[in-house]
Amino acid sequence: MESSNIYLKKPPVILASAAVGGKSEAEGPHGDCFDMLDRTGKFGKSTWEQAEAEMQGTALSLALHKAKLGHGDLDMLLAGDLMNQCTSSSYGALSFGIPFVGIYGACSTSAEGLMLASMLISGGSANRVGVVASSHFCSAERQFRFPLDYGGQRPPTAQWTVTAAGAFVLSSEGQGPRVRAALPGRIVDGGITDANNMGAAMAPAAYDTLKRFFTITKTSPADYDKIVSGDLGYEGYGILKDLFAKDGIALGDVYEDCGLMIYNRKVQDVHAGGSGCGCSASMLSAVLLPKKYSRMLYMATGALMSPMSVKQGQSIPGIAHLVQIES
Amino acid sequence: MESSNIYLKKPPVILASAAVGGKSEAEGPHGDCFDMLDRTGKFGKSTWEQAEAEMQGTALSLALHKAKLGHGDLDMLLAGDLMNQCTSSSYGALSFGIPFVGIYGACSTSAEGLMLASMLISGGSANRVGVVASSHFCSAERQFRFPLDYGGQRPPTAQWTVTAAGAFVLSSEGQGPRVRAALPGRIVDGGITDANNMGAAMAPAAYDTLKRFFTITKTSPADYDKIVSGDLGYEGYGILKDLFAKDGIALGDVYEDCGLMIYNRKVQDVHAGGSGCGCSASMLSAVLLPKKYSRMLYMATGALMSPMSVKQGQSIPGIAHLVQIES
Repeated sequence: MESSNIYLKKPPVILASAAVGGKSEAEGPHGDCFDMLDRTGKFGKSTWEQAEAEMQGTALSLALHKAKLGHGDLDMLLAGDLMNQCTSSSYGALSFGIPFVGIYGACSTSAEGLMLASMLISGGSANRVGVVASSHFCSAERQFRFPLDYGGQRPPTAQWTVTAAGAFVLSSEGQGPRVRAALPGRIVDGGITDANNMGAAMAPAAYDTLKRFFTITKTSPADYDKIVSGDLGYEGYGILKDLFAKDGIALGDVYEDCGLMIYNRKVQDVHAGGSGCGCSASMLSAVLLPKKYSRMLYMATGALMSPMSVKQGQSIPGIAHLVQIES
Repeated sequence: MESSNIYLKKPPVILASAAVGGKSEAEGPHGDCFDMLDRTGKFGKSTWEQAEAEMQGTALSLALHKAKLGHGDLDMLLAGDLMNQCTSSSYGALSFGIPFVGIYGACSTSAEGLMLASMLISGGSANRVGVVASSHFCSAERQFRFPLDYGGQRPPTAQWTVTAAGAFVLSSEGQGPRVRAALPGRIVDGGITDANNMGAAMAPAAYDTLKRFFTITKTSPADYDKIVSGDLGYEGYGILKDLFAKDGIALGDVYEDCGLMIYNRKVQDVHAGGSGCGCSASMLSAVLLPKKYSRMLYMATGALMSPMSVKQGQSIPGIAHLVQIES
């Protein structure tokens, strides 16, 4: 991609956003910043999967409420999650009747959605687009790992799947932070086969995207007042800093990771930090956007494996999509 | 959406496409039209899942070859499939290093990809975009239904998951059919709970999209020389015609369904016809585009359930994305 493709011709506005979360998120350092918290994690539903779908719908409705819009005001909704066949998104959006575009980027989904929405609005294919991403600890654990009741042990490199959804309303017009640039990630496979070390699996993809972005835009970390990765967690955060250090580039204090922001690792038993589509989506809405950074790089990262691919011995490819948001 | 959003400002060109398939597809009425067939269905790999990923890569390479381009000439690749966490797409694209955007639309994936690619190119965010969609009978059967060796019985309404991949190379410049318009589908739930009757589950969504398209564009079936639905199969094909007949609209002879095109139902034991992301994708590339219709509506349909959502008693929502292709 060339810089002419990366910088949006008509940078869209993020009119409003919302974040909903569960118990661990409520107990984290930014619990007060969520728009809604349900410590039962059920959101009024009888299964974890339906609870996650409900979170998506609730987050979208709250974001639309803040934007003083209704569901019918959206031209399109882009949504994704970690569930098989992305059912949290399709059932979450079911009742709203909004033209729907399903996306899959694992934990990079929020940035993938913001990137696509921005490109579609900038290009004139839509005026207002909603973006939603979610994950739920309980639905993810039983799908990817073990039933909760089993009480499986987790190694220190494992991350804790966040119970949260983040929703964003983007528009061609209005007031708010603007998405100035967007860069889709490439799939990068660092050879990691341990599904309990996704930070290490995703870090090479994060490095690839951020490095390409700096190169294409001829900028460096000093040009931004915040650089955020999605959910590399403790392991991946360190690896990404090391990879750039080898190039003589210090990411410095402006660099943070949503997987490390969302929980208090000293108190909460979350091992290497948070992960899941809802991690970066909720932190962007609840913590990062309210800080009104003038030039922020928001890069959500995803691990593109499945339980089947891991069992078949394949290594875990990663991806990282990036958007530049200016308040 | 308004017609100003539906008609693409700079309609992109489909420079080239390719279709690869397996045994049943080779034995179907259009077997000769595929670019490559592997009757073993393995494409040189040791698992069905890796075979499907390989199909994606092969189809993309063949399409790029026809377009006289290399993988590095693509600004973006949009790909999707039916596998949990869309692994056929991420592993299929892994080695190429193309900026990757994962999409999920179940069997509507080809149209979702063509729609997004067209919007991104028309809007100036990319110059050349690849689109790939695939499904594999063997990987889908064991994931969605039963292991192949079990020999489960199938009711007459069941469809046969197509082993195929279709790939498309779209560009802002060049010669070939153009994508003139695109309309994203809404999620519609007709209340069907039988996972062996996806045609009935998807038909209401197909009706919703096609009806909206006619309304917004102020056109009727007579304005097109071909109208194709993705893979409604025998059941859904009849339901869609009935739904329009109730409105006094005859879809007529210009209307066909890819699920009915790909196999010879009199000879092949495929029940209600073909389904899967590879069904409409391969028929579009192998059969429809070569016929150079002057105004074709291509509407791929998807059923957005998962085995988990079906087991939890939820009904099966459908979606249908539409693109208008002019040769």
